[in-house]
Amino acid sequence: MLVTSSLDEVKKRESALRNIRKIINQDTRKNLYDFTGLSGGFLATESDLKLLETYVGPAIFEEKLQKEGIKHLGGEKVFAVNRTSSGILATILALVPEKGFVLHFLKEHPAHPSIPRSCKLMHANYLEYTDIDKFRVPYDVNLVIITGSTMDHQTIDEKTFKKVINLAHKENIPVLVDDASGARIRTAIFNQKKATELGADLVVTSTDKLMKGPRGGLMAGKEDLIDLVKSKATQFGLEAQPPSILAMVKGLEDYNPENLRSSLNKKTELFDQLKLKYDSFQETPTGIMVKEGDMYNELHCENKDLTAKDFNFLWSMILLKKEGIITIPAVGMPGASATIRFDIASPDSNKLTVEEIIKKINSSINSLKNV
Amino acid sequence: MLVTSSLDEVKKRESALRNIRKIINQDTRKNLYDFTGLSGGFLATESDLKLLETYVGPAIFEEKLQKEGIKHLGGEKVFAVNRTSSGILATILALVPEKGFVLHFLKEHPAHPSIPRSCKLMHANYLEYTDIDKFRVPYDVNLVIITGSTMDHQTIDEKTFKKVINLAHKENIPVLVDDASGARIRTAIFNQKKATELGADLVVTSTDKLMKGPRGGLMAGKEDLIDLVKSKATQFGLEAQPPSILAMVKGLEDYNPENLRSSLNKKTELFDQLKLKYDSFQETPTGIMVKEGDMYNELHCENKDLTAKDFNFLWSMILLKKEGIITIPAVGMPGASATIRFDIASPDSNKLTVEEIIKKINSSINSLKNV
Repeated sequence: MLVTSSLDEVKKRESALRNIRKIINQDTRKNLYDFTGLSGGFLATESDLKLLETYVGPAIFEEKLQKEGIKHLGGEKVFAVNRTSSGILATILALVPEKGFVLHFLKEHPAHPSIPRSCKLMHANYLEYTDIDKFRVPYDVNLVIITGSTMDHQTIDEKTFKKVINLAHKENIPVLVDDASGARIRTAIFNQKKATELGADLVVTSTDKLMKGPRGGLMAGKEDLIDLVKSKATQFGLEAQPPSILAMVKGLEDYNPENLRSSLNKKTELFDQLKLKYDSFQETPTGIMVKEGDMYNELHCENKDLTAKDFNFLWSMILLKKEGIITIPAVGMPGASATIRFDIASPDSNKLTVEEIIKKINSSINSLKNV
Repeated sequence: MLVTSSLDEVKKRESALRNIRKIINQDTRKNLYDFTGLSGGFLATESDLKLLETYVGPAIFEEKLQKEGIKHLGGEKVFAVNRTSSGILATILALVPEKGFVLHFLKEHPAHPSIPRSCKLMHANYLEYTDIDKFRVPYDVNLVIITGSTMDHQTIDEKTFKKVINLAHKENIPVLVDDASGARIRTAIFNQKKATELGADLVVTSTDKLMKGPRGGLMAGKEDLIDLVKSKATQFGLEAQPPSILAMVKGLEDYNPENLRSSLNKKTELFDQLKLKYDSFQETPTGIMVKEGDMYNELHCENKDLTAKDFNFLWSMILLKKEGIITIPAVGMPGASATIRFDIASPDSNKLTVEEIIKKINSSINSLKNV
């Protein structure tokens, strides 16, 4: 086993970032292909930048963020956080008392680690459900969380979504939706309503997932709850800073669900060709993926030092070093999914044809056969 | 009493930001005078901005940050956090176990609220000391914190600084220095050594305090400790994002202690003139200040609805709305000091002569006489 702790994951990320730097220094950015679906971006103009000061910046961009944020997420008020994980931590600190009780409904385990970790900090009783028929909401629950779409883009259906909200609201319990990529996958791809339209009291989305915003989180919902979360967030330094808020406004202005939908054809073509040769690839709403263990088993990996998770980390590093392709296992934060995902809605996807992507994937898999 | 909770402080800050926006929309930025000493900034070029992506950005700017950060703070490795408060939270989560024990030495109470708040989250035993003769370090302490310079710029002397570190190290206990503005006040103004040179294991500074960086925190210290803090920080979304890291690099490159020192003459002239007319002003290392209660008593404020703290908040709002002067009580985060401080080292200080500043202060105090 190579990667055994969060500390190892930090080291792995540092090594991946060194490799990205090496590729950029040799070849410029054009030979790097970010397929994470998290490419982020910073679409500001020079005159925007002049206003980026500690107290002046938020005054200007805050107003625009309210307008664009409510258009994207609905709700009465929005609040920008440093990361989606920071928003989840702030919400749990604000709404869950010491030794409180949190329920989490999601399409498929595992949950994003920031949710159980934040509950643990409050010594809260924390239960996860994936089966709506088994889901009950006792009266003494403090918060119900729904994951709109998991790290692997497994997406909840609208009927189940509403049922969870109704069960929580029957007991007057607030509902937070972790709609990190769901705020776009659910709406643009599956034609579902916004989380707030379905009755959620709070929602948080990641502004670098499937849109050209910065790494960061945007929360929306009922004004009184947003104010409570905001108060807790600013006490611990969990809010987004002016440069990120500016980049969020620009990313929201740029967002067009049509672009997301048009990536669907390319994805289908890629998947249809890959499945002729491999069994491990699966479709996601905006790309293709190989889960931890699947390619490891398909290639009959016999290296006893490598776990199935190590194998995907290694594959991700080979994709980066040899093919210039960035996937999440190489660069993700500790606890991120080990699934290798090629997000065809990523802006860099336009730089390669389906044939070129397949060639790079084949070549990386050939390298893996020798480990 | 008008402001009674963190939630009220969030509302106050929102109202101040609306006023800043109003002034900018009417008059442009030139009639706004940011005297907080926290003006921040964003000195990036257009080619820097093109590299601001979630995974590509950190790869490039991380290397420069290591170089400039170590030059500024010393230590083996640096790590950028979303805010100084986030760095303090991450350090306490990383180094203090549940129900652990933390000592804090500072020149004067109160401590920055993020320190006791983070300890409370871990249910840690937390003790504050201001008298070095009473300071003892029991063997079962997990972390010793030193505040290099308080929110009101009260600065610890180097001899006391070293003594606290020696007492902690005798018991093998790590020392974190909260050198938010101290990293510059202590070194540029009082000619002291960097915290790491004095033996600190970890130090955190605010990159928008007395330098032209963004709101954010920069940590430095022993590599193994930085790695532990970094691992905890990335789990909860406490790390700085690429746009802030870029702006930190630019702010560090721009920093010149000479500019800080040259503001000293202007400050002395301003203080000498103000003390002929008022008793409440005090000198700080880089400006002048009026603490909570002092002007309230000097003017014999008789409005029973106003506490001494409300009075300073109100003064700060009058300074902003009528004079265009930004001070911390109007725009600060919850728990920030209610001291009215005019930081003469702020870049906007150059836009006004000593006489113009005095005229604006006199006018604001005249408005206060009628409340």
